[in-house]
Amino acid sequence: MTSPVGLHRVLEPRGVLPQAATRLDAAPEIGDDEVRIRVERLNLDAASFRQLATKHSGDGAAVRAEVLRIIERRGKMQNPVTGSGGMLIGTVDEVGPVSPLGLKPGDRVATLVSLTLTPLTVTDGLARWDGRGEQVPCDGYAILFARSIAAVLPDDLDPELALAVLDVCGAPALTARVVRGYRDPTVAVLGGAGKSGSLSLAAARRAGAARTIGVVPNQQEADRLAASGLADVVAIADARDPVALAAEVGTADVTVVCVDVPGCEHGAILATADGGTVVFFSMATSFAAAALGAEGLAADVTMLIGNGYVPGHADYALDLIRAEPGARALFDARRTAH
Amino acid sequence: MTSPVGLHRVLEPRGVLPQAATRLDAAPEIGDDEVRIRVERLNLDAASFRQLATKHSGDGAAVRAEVLRIIERRGKMQNPVTGSGGMLIGTVDEVGPVSPLGLKPGDRVATLVSLTLTPLTVTDGLARWDGRGEQVPCDGYAILFARSIAAVLPDDLDPELALAVLDVCGAPALTARVVRGYRDPTVAVLGGAGKSGSLSLAAARRAGAARTIGVVPNQQEADRLAASGLADVVAIADARDPVALAAEVGTADVTVVCVDVPGCEHGAILATADGGTVVFFSMATSFAAAALGAEGLAADVTMLIGNGYVPGHADYALDLIRAEPGARALFDARRTAH
Repeated sequence: MTSPVGLHRVLEPRGVLPQAATRLDAAPEIGDDEVRIRVERLNLDAASFRQLATKHSGDGAAVRAEVLRIIERRGKMQNPVTGSGGMLIGTVDEVGPVSPLGLKPGDRVATLVSLTLTPLTVTDGLARWDGRGEQVPCDGYAILFARSIAAVLPDDLDPELALAVLDVCGAPALTARVVRGYRDPTVAVLGGAGKSGSLSLAAARRAGAARTIGVVPNQQEADRLAASGLADVVAIADARDPVALAAEVGTADVTVVCVDVPGCEHGAILATADGGTVVFFSMATSFAAAALGAEGLAADVTMLIGNGYVPGHADYALDLIRAEPGARALFDARRTAH
Repeated sequence: MTSPVGLHRVLEPRGVLPQAATRLDAAPEIGDDEVRIRVERLNLDAASFRQLATKHSGDGAAVRAEVLRIIERRGKMQNPVTGSGGMLIGTVDEVGPVSPLGLKPGDRVATLVSLTLTPLTVTDGLARWDGRGEQVPCDGYAILFARSIAAVLPDDLDPELALAVLDVCGAPALTARVVRGYRDPTVAVLGGAGKSGSLSLAAARRAGAARTIGVVPNQQEADRLAASGLADVVAIADARDPVALAAEVGTADVTVVCVDVPGCEHGAILATADGGTVVFFSMATSFAAAALGAEGLAADVTMLIGNGYVPGHADYALDLIRAEPGARALFDARRTAH
């Protein structure tokens, strides 16, 4: 009997969820509701790779050896310092008879659940990786549970673009859901020229926003966002400065925080009208700063923790990038900038 | 021209909100939309007092001297280490002609915004305080802004009980609002025998919950909660253990987290049905654990940061404690336990 959330794969400590486990059982034999993926590439989380590269002073061979050691010891790729993982792409190898994921052998997929909870075995010693980048060519196996999520990579999009879109696909889906709850709302997106920000702007407009405001930190991003046409108004402001931000934005009915720097909570709250909603997607969000900030401002705003999972989020985001050349141009600009 | 959020009182650094300021102008002269309170007692935040008492090895005179020094230097009571403040009670002294707070001179009030953003001057050197408890008898002045919040203390309730209720009054109000958004929901409250938990249980039932489940950590709290009659089901479980919690609760439509220990995010998410809502009131909540946990579990749940402010929250909570002898008994049990 297998658990839909993978409890049967947890070796240490017993009773926790796979994400909190120190060691998973990554055996390739699958349960009736599991799926085995033949892995093609790991996409390490940026924070995790940075930590490893810094620790080993950029020595690629040492980074590679440590990643291999982590995966062998833990049965998953979870950086013990940052706690983060990443995602992977590969091909479906075998599908259990009662798997609810809708996958079939041969499907080329990206996993949308974190590597931190995905059983993983590497079989090629990561021989094709030089240890110098987040993209890790890899031969091996990974296991998906009944409640894992994977998206079939579309034929019509560059896989690298598709991965970048899938990486942030929760943001536009949740933004759309929130915006639909208002009538003709004004929607402000902090970090509007970024990946999750640009898709959230596009989603907001499609979901019925009467006016979209994209907030960016400098003129270069303002020019790019203006050229994309995704925002009715482009504003330059430091999202960490509540007074400046509120002056630029006025008040929005829905404020979406896609800026990955700490200290944006008060500004987002102050820029949101009473009865409005703030959606925090930034992992740099402080729970306490948001809760105490709203109380201190007597702000009657709903504050959402940005859940990366919304049913249909992958297809929705891929459809957006196909339909919105402005969003696509922003993604392309980011990729060539690297 | 005064700012409704108190920007005109910020001395250092310029441009931040009063809560983030290192120094406020606590001059007693009020602006047109401000209110001056004659302070009677400060109620230091528990975490703040504990830090000060530990630092000074319980030397009350040293604790008193440091609290005085903090208030003199900062123009507010905000512990520089914990960042926290507390609340105060006092009597309204003067009300600016355009203050929207609805107060009049002579009203005995408790402030519901934190001391961390309230301009404060002490005039008696805290001479009546021995530095050995969180309750600080105090003579001095405090300033409320247009967007501050204060509740008039009711004549019919023991002021200490009223303060304890006001301290957590955001939780029942927000719980009621969320519960009203569902039809005949099951509502689980983690920490159901505590102050915010018991009021949230009472609020959930009044707002239309078909079934309320109170989760507590041990038999003693289970007996107390059962005797109160506030929950249809009383369950004993460690809220940090997702598997045990889900086994006890099953799935709820609304899960309210009132347990002030870290690590309750995954359990709360797993115990919530798809389409349900988790409301996090605990300041020990980790934003990242909640966001990544929901994604890793493919859980389509709405996650709310518990905003301590909801319009009408103080009156609503005071009405609950008047009408619900079960909740009152739990409050009394906690007070006599100290």
